[in-house]
Amino acid sequence: MTGEGAGAAFAFDIDGRDGDARRGVFTTPHGRVDTPAFMAVGTLATVKSLDPGDLTRAGAQMILANAYHLHLRPGDELVRDLGGLHRSMGWNGPILTDSGGFQVFSLATLRTVDEDGVDFRSHLDGSIRRFTPELVMAIERNLGADVVMQFDHVIPGQSDAATARDASERSIRWLQRCLDAFADITPPPPHGHAQALFPIVQGGIHPELRLEAAKAIGGMSDWRGFGIGGLSVGEAKPDMYRILEIVNDVLPRERPRYLMGVGFPEDLVEGVRRGVDLFDCVAPTRMGRNGAAFTSDGRLNIKRAEYRTDQRPLDEGCACAACTRFTRAYIRHLFVSDEMLGLRLLSLHNVHFLVALMRSARDAIGNGTFGAWSQRWLDRYHSRSSTYA
Amino acid sequence: MTGEGAGAAFAFDIDGRDGDARRGVFTTPHGRVDTPAFMAVGTLATVKSLDPGDLTRAGAQMILANAYHLHLRPGDELVRDLGGLHRSMGWNGPILTDSGGFQVFSLATLRTVDEDGVDFRSHLDGSIRRFTPELVMAIERNLGADVVMQFDHVIPGQSDAATARDASERSIRWLQRCLDAFADITPPPPHGHAQALFPIVQGGIHPELRLEAAKAIGGMSDWRGFGIGGLSVGEAKPDMYRILEIVNDVLPRERPRYLMGVGFPEDLVEGVRRGVDLFDCVAPTRMGRNGAAFTSDGRLNIKRAEYRTDQRPLDEGCACAACTRFTRAYIRHLFVSDEMLGLRLLSLHNVHFLVALMRSARDAIGNGTFGAWSQRWLDRYHSRSSTYA
Repeated sequence: MTGEGAGAAFAFDIDGRDGDARRGVFTTPHGRVDTPAFMAVGTLATVKSLDPGDLTRAGAQMILANAYHLHLRPGDELVRDLGGLHRSMGWNGPILTDSGGFQVFSLATLRTVDEDGVDFRSHLDGSIRRFTPELVMAIERNLGADVVMQFDHVIPGQSDAATARDASERSIRWLQRCLDAFADITPPPPHGHAQALFPIVQGGIHPELRLEAAKAIGGMSDWRGFGIGGLSVGEAKPDMYRILEIVNDVLPRERPRYLMGVGFPEDLVEGVRRGVDLFDCVAPTRMGRNGAAFTSDGRLNIKRAEYRTDQRPLDEGCACAACTRFTRAYIRHLFVSDEMLGLRLLSLHNVHFLVALMRSARDAIGNGTFGAWSQRWLDRYHSRSSTYA
Repeated sequence: MTGEGAGAAFAFDIDGRDGDARRGVFTTPHGRVDTPAFMAVGTLATVKSLDPGDLTRAGAQMILANAYHLHLRPGDELVRDLGGLHRSMGWNGPILTDSGGFQVFSLATLRTVDEDGVDFRSHLDGSIRRFTPELVMAIERNLGADVVMQFDHVIPGQSDAATARDASERSIRWLQRCLDAFADITPPPPHGHAQALFPIVQGGIHPELRLEAAKAIGGMSDWRGFGIGGLSVGEAKPDMYRILEIVNDVLPRERPRYLMGVGFPEDLVEGVRRGVDLFDCVAPTRMGRNGAAFTSDGRLNIKRAEYRTDQRPLDEGCACAACTRFTRAYIRHLFVSDEMLGLRLLSLHNVHFLVALMRSARDAIGNGTFGAWSQRWLDRYHSRSSTYA
């Protein structure tokens, strides 16, 4: 059981393959997501500086919010009473909530893990809190996303095998408790739609642990999709790619695979090449706030003096609302003057860039040219990066 | 002469009157402005947190930018080289530039006025600068707005008659120099459209000075419109209203009158009632950034605890992009969480609110019901303000 009605309300139809890359449609109670897809991150029920209209115009189909953050502020019960996430944030498309496993281990302080759950201090007010798989499922039921992630035990990327095994096995035991709790909790009436619980494959950079986790999890339920967690957390890139290949080789091919927290352009292309269907990352908005723009020729820092009189758009091939209307010179002026529109335009561009990149990947998979397209794309992206820095 | 071609490129057609209130169409080289109208303020060539699409959707037709600020950053010559303000900021509608007279006297430090001009220290980097009427005309030619304001000598609202007379008479002498310089400066080729120079009537709260100024200015040229400056700068509201009545009684009726820097909702209604056609103010965006929203029932501070679970829109009668999509509870969450979307939504709402208010005023003038409509509007706005604070 992954939530009542989940079987009928969710579907994944693969309509093209090229090597390990797949093209498909992930159907949710709030509509479809063409995969591979990048999900914009709206941690606190808002994709920083962007509104739902901006996201729609950028082509985004699915967004992510965060159970840890929303539990602390404004409170998941308040979100429930306001009609759930979709209604509150004015986004009627698919939403996924991360469980907060990553945040408890990255943001909170003084955390103590025991078999039952985690005690931690809130990063906001220092209050002592406790998360258990059961509480997190209640939180995610209250938030009412389409896809909800299990509560897991996240560890640093370079952890040794013993630490990784302990955390991975605990995450699997917690998954069973999530599954039971999720089935036991009646969804709050305002939401009125099915939710699907996704498990998360952990195991660090240790292939045997990843394999064991993927197999154990696969046998627990007819999952609607799988999260791959604990990557892009400090490990070397080749390690990440190797683990992806191993995991995707054993996960059921007919279900979407979501590589959590990964979202630099080159990582998306490398991920699709290895069979990933969904991605998310704060990078496009966080980097946008800092003045960095993704381009086909690598990253660009708009604050640099060389852009003072540059009348080109951020990226010459980009059709986003920023690139079709504003020059680098103007956006640089906005940044130099601390004008909010600057970071908003870069955030918008970066989200659009990743969404459009996944659209190109889908086209290439459909045409059977993904291998050549992705290599050419990566070569161009990497070769000129040095001129931008 | 108010700029070559200005006579043909600018027009003001009044199509309705009700008492002293007028309804009309102000035509500029970049299109029409239905008056009375509120102009959103984009000091640094950006209306803070909003993009041109937001402004168009809010119904804004004309925006304002500032010569003092843009001269300091990024530089008016750079704006010229980038094709002028319209092209740089992606706004193809009418633009007006204020001359910087107000900013030199409000923001800059250590200013010294002599008959030729003003020495001042830049508020940005402390550098010593000098503004003369001739330099300011060159700046405004470089920026390329449709309407450019004269450089004037601005004084505090409560200045005595001698101080006010000195500044007003100097402003008139500077106006003649602005007129001469404006005619002498060839508009930079990229702009390719006519610009109209507006004079500014000064004279503080002293009726005889205002009358003298209005008459002297009226005889100097066939102006396309008139600015009324030096109000809403610390004087009592009844003084402001009295001065407006006096000035508008002697200014040519067939030209638009622009009340500078005035833009709270009640001031707009009181201004229209006294024959004003154009307004501008930073209030909607500045207050929006601080959490204040205009409503038909007075101002509302969205950060207050009472809005935590309030599922109503900011203003129940408002059709703006914020009010049609988001609740007070959600926008309060955004403010409490320091999320940028919060101040953006309030800025958008406040600009829309003033634009829509002017649309209602136009309708009432057209229907011959402006007197009753404006009194009812003011009564409601003021009567419940105490419940919002």
